[in-house]
Amino acid sequence: MRILRFNDDAFEPTLQKIVNRGAAAQGDVCFTVQEIIDDVRRRGDSALFEHTEKYDRLRLTAETLEVSAEEIDQALAGVSEESLAALRLAAERIAAFHAKQKEQTWLSTEEEDVLLGQMVRPLDRVGIYVPGGKAAYPSSVLMNAVPAKVAGVPEVIMVVPMPGGEVNPHVLAAAHLAGVDRIFKVGGAQAVAALAFGTQSVPRVDKITGPGNIYVATAKQQVFGQVDIDMIAGPSEILIINDGSGDPAHLAADLLGQAEHDELASSILITTDDKIAKKVAKEVEKQLKELSRETIARKAIEAFGAIFIARDLDEAIAFSNRIAPEHLELAVDNPFEILPRIRHAGAIFLGHYTPEAAGDYLAGPNHTLPTGGTARFFSPLSTNDFVKKSSIVSFSRNGLERLGKEIVHIAELEGLEAHGRSVSIRLEK
Amino acid sequence: MRILRFNDDAFEPTLQKIVNRGAAAQGDVCFTVQEIIDDVRRRGDSALFEHTEKYDRLRLTAETLEVSAEEIDQALAGVSEESLAALRLAAERIAAFHAKQKEQTWLSTEEEDVLLGQMVRPLDRVGIYVPGGKAAYPSSVLMNAVPAKVAGVPEVIMVVPMPGGEVNPHVLAAAHLAGVDRIFKVGGAQAVAALAFGTQSVPRVDKITGPGNIYVATAKQQVFGQVDIDMIAGPSEILIINDGSGDPAHLAADLLGQAEHDELASSILITTDDKIAKKVAKEVEKQLKELSRETIARKAIEAFGAIFIARDLDEAIAFSNRIAPEHLELAVDNPFEILPRIRHAGAIFLGHYTPEAAGDYLAGPNHTLPTGGTARFFSPLSTNDFVKKSSIVSFSRNGLERLGKEIVHIAELEGLEAHGRSVSIRLEK
Repeated sequence: MRILRFNDDAFEPTLQKIVNRGAAAQGDVCFTVQEIIDDVRRRGDSALFEHTEKYDRLRLTAETLEVSAEEIDQALAGVSEESLAALRLAAERIAAFHAKQKEQTWLSTEEEDVLLGQMVRPLDRVGIYVPGGKAAYPSSVLMNAVPAKVAGVPEVIMVVPMPGGEVNPHVLAAAHLAGVDRIFKVGGAQAVAALAFGTQSVPRVDKITGPGNIYVATAKQQVFGQVDIDMIAGPSEILIINDGSGDPAHLAADLLGQAEHDELASSILITTDDKIAKKVAKEVEKQLKELSRETIARKAIEAFGAIFIARDLDEAIAFSNRIAPEHLELAVDNPFEILPRIRHAGAIFLGHYTPEAAGDYLAGPNHTLPTGGTARFFSPLSTNDFVKKSSIVSFSRNGLERLGKEIVHIAELEGLEAHGRSVSIRLEK
Repeated sequence: MRILRFNDDAFEPTLQKIVNRGAAAQGDVCFTVQEIIDDVRRRGDSALFEHTEKYDRLRLTAETLEVSAEEIDQALAGVSEESLAALRLAAERIAAFHAKQKEQTWLSTEEEDVLLGQMVRPLDRVGIYVPGGKAAYPSSVLMNAVPAKVAGVPEVIMVVPMPGGEVNPHVLAAAHLAGVDRIFKVGGAQAVAALAFGTQSVPRVDKITGPGNIYVATAKQQVFGQVDIDMIAGPSEILIINDGSGDPAHLAADLLGQAEHDELASSILITTDDKIAKKVAKEVEKQLKELSRETIARKAIEAFGAIFIARDLDEAIAFSNRIAPEHLELAVDNPFEILPRIRHAGAIFLGHYTPEAAGDYLAGPNHTLPTGGTARFFSPLSTNDFVKKSSIVSFSRNGLERLGKEIVHIAELEGLEAHGRSVSIRLEK
C-alpha cells in the first residue's frame, strides 16, 4: 500500500484520482432507462413482466409477481436460529436508534392571538429497492425498512429482483423481521418505474429508497419529483485518522473491510506516525492474502487506497474536513477530544474498539451514508426521511388586527394588491 | 368562476387540467442550460460576465460584480422607515418560528459500553437565488436567508440579477436585515453554475435554495449532487375547504390572492354549501374588476380556478388529501376538529381570520412549500435544510465483546469476510 506525505509530488494526483473515481461515464444508460420507465408507465404490468423476463430470465404473472406467505415461510425455514437471532438483534438496535430521531408535531402557544406549529406525518406508502443475486444484503433491508416502520409508514413495499427465480432467504427473513408489508419479485429500472407510477399489480409509492446498480440509480434520478428518493450513492470509502496509538493489525483490517466491497472502494489511513504507517502497509499485504475476496480488495487498495503521513493531528483533521468522508474512524487515544473539530462526515467511529463494520450491521445508526464528499451537505438516511411536515397557522381576529398592517404593507411593496386585500377586507367591519 | 359537483361530467376533466398544468414542455431549455453551466464551470468569471452581459444587458468586472457596502447604504436610504419596520417584523417572526425547528446534537448513554449519537452542524456556505426585475420579492430573501442564519450557516451568499443595472432597494434591505454576507449581481443558469462550482470571484457553496424561472430551476436540477438544492417548485395553488360558514367576500379575496401570482396559479374552493358557492363566484367577478393585476388573475381563475360542491366535509377532506395542496385553508367553524384528518398539505391556514397571505409574509413559517401534489412527500423549507448530520458510534472493548459475535455472523451471511475479521481480530487477545 503506497505511503505518501503531503509535500510529495504524487500526493495531489493520487488524491484527485481517489476523489474523482465516482465520475463514471454513463453513456447511453440514461436513454435506456428512460425507455424502460416510459414503457412501464404506459403499459403497466405487461411491460414490467416483459422487462423482468428479459433482464432477470424470470417469467412472472399477476399471480406470481408477489412473494406469498408460503414463500416467506419457506425462506424462514431455511434460515438458522442463530442467523435469525443476529438479524433480530440488528433490527431491534436499528429501531431503538431511529426511534430517537423521531420528531413530534408541535404547536406554539406563545402568542395569545396567533397559533403556529408544525405537523409531522409518516408517508403513506414507501418503496424499498433491494438488490438481488450476489449483492443481496439482509442488512440493507433492515436499514431501509426499519426506519420507515419506526416513522409510522403504514405500507412498506419491497422490490427485489430474483434472477432465474433465485431468492436469498436471509433477505426475505430480514424483510419479515422488519415488518415489510408486501414484496414484489422485480428489480432494475422497471421496478423503480412500477413503484413511481404504479401498475395494475404494484401500488404507487411516495418515496423510493435503497441501493442499486447504475440502472437503478439512474431510474431513481429520473422519477425524482414524481416521488421522493433517497440520495444517489457513489462508491464507498473510509478514512481513518490515527495518532500513532492502536494496533496496526486492527487498522489494516478496517482498511480491508472497506476495500472488499468493490473495486471502486477507497481506503485511506492518515497518521501522524511514520512507523505505524509502515506496519499497517505490511499488515494489509499479509491480511490481503488470507481474504476470500482478495482480488477485489487488492484492486481497490492498489487503485484507491493510500496511507498519508500528516505532520500533526491538525493537518490530519483539516485533510478529513477537505475530503468529507462517508466513514470516518478516529483511531486515536482521545477521540472525543477531536470530535468537535470534525465538520463533515457521514458516520464517525470513535476509539480503538469501534471498527466501521459495527456500524454496517447493528450499532444502530443507518449504514446508508453520503459518499464522495457529499457529507458536506447530505445526512445519513434517517427516520425523518420517511415523514413529511405541514406548517400550521391560525390567526384570531385580534392577531390579524395586530399584524395586519405590516402584511398589507409588504404585499404592496411586492405589488401584490390582492394579497393585501385578503387581509384588509377582514378588518373592514 | 365555474361551479361543479363531483358527479358532473366536467368534474374529472377539469381537475385533470388543473393537476397537470405544471407539466410544461421544457424543449431545449435543458440543453441551453447545460451549455451555460459547462461554460461557467470551465471558464469561471469571464463566462459569468459574458452570459450576464448577454441576458441581463449588464457589463460586470471583478470589481463591480459584488454589491458594495455603499450600494447597500444607498438602497437602505431609499427605503421608508415604515417599510423597514415591516420587513424587520417579518424577519423577527420568521427567525422565531425557525428557531423552534432547530435540532440539537445528541448522545445516548443508555448502554454502559456503547455510545451512540447524532451530530448536527450547519452547512459551511449556502447560496440563495433571488429573482430580479419585476418579480423581485423581499419576502423571498427573508424566507431563505433567515432560516440559514438561524441554522448557524456562517456564510450566506445571495445572487440576484440586475437587468440593465436595475436594483430593487427592498430586496437589498431584506438581505441586509436577514444578515446575508455577500451579494453578487448575477442571475440565471450562469449564477447557479457559479455557486455550484465556484469562480475566481464567486465562492463555491454547499447548497442552493430559492425560486427562479425555468432556466434557474433546470440549472438547479442539473447541479444537484454537486451541491444540495431545495425542491423544484411548480406553479402555486390554494385549496379552501368551507362548511358554509364565513363571509363569501373573504373567500373570494383569498382565491384572488393566489390567482394574481401568475397565469398558471390554481385557486379552488370546495364547499358543502350551494348558496355560498354562488355568492363566492359573484364576489370573485366583482373583486376581479378592482384588481391592478386583473388580467393575470382572470386568466388563472378561468383556466385553473374552480368551485366544487361536496356532499359533506368528509368528501371535501378526501378531495383535499387526494390533491395534497401547497396552501390549504380550513375556512370552517371548527378547523382544529378536522386538522387531524388532513394527511397532505404544505401549509394549513385555520379559521376565518387566517388568509393565506399572512403566511406569505410574516406569520413565521416558511412560504417555500411543496407544490403540485408533492406535499405527499416533501416538506416546507426549514432550518433543517441548512444543517447536515453525522452519526456517532463508539464501542468500548466490553461493547464489542458483547455484540461482536452477531456482527461477525451477519458479515458472514453477506459474504463479507473482512468485515467480520475487523471485529474478531480485536477480540483475539
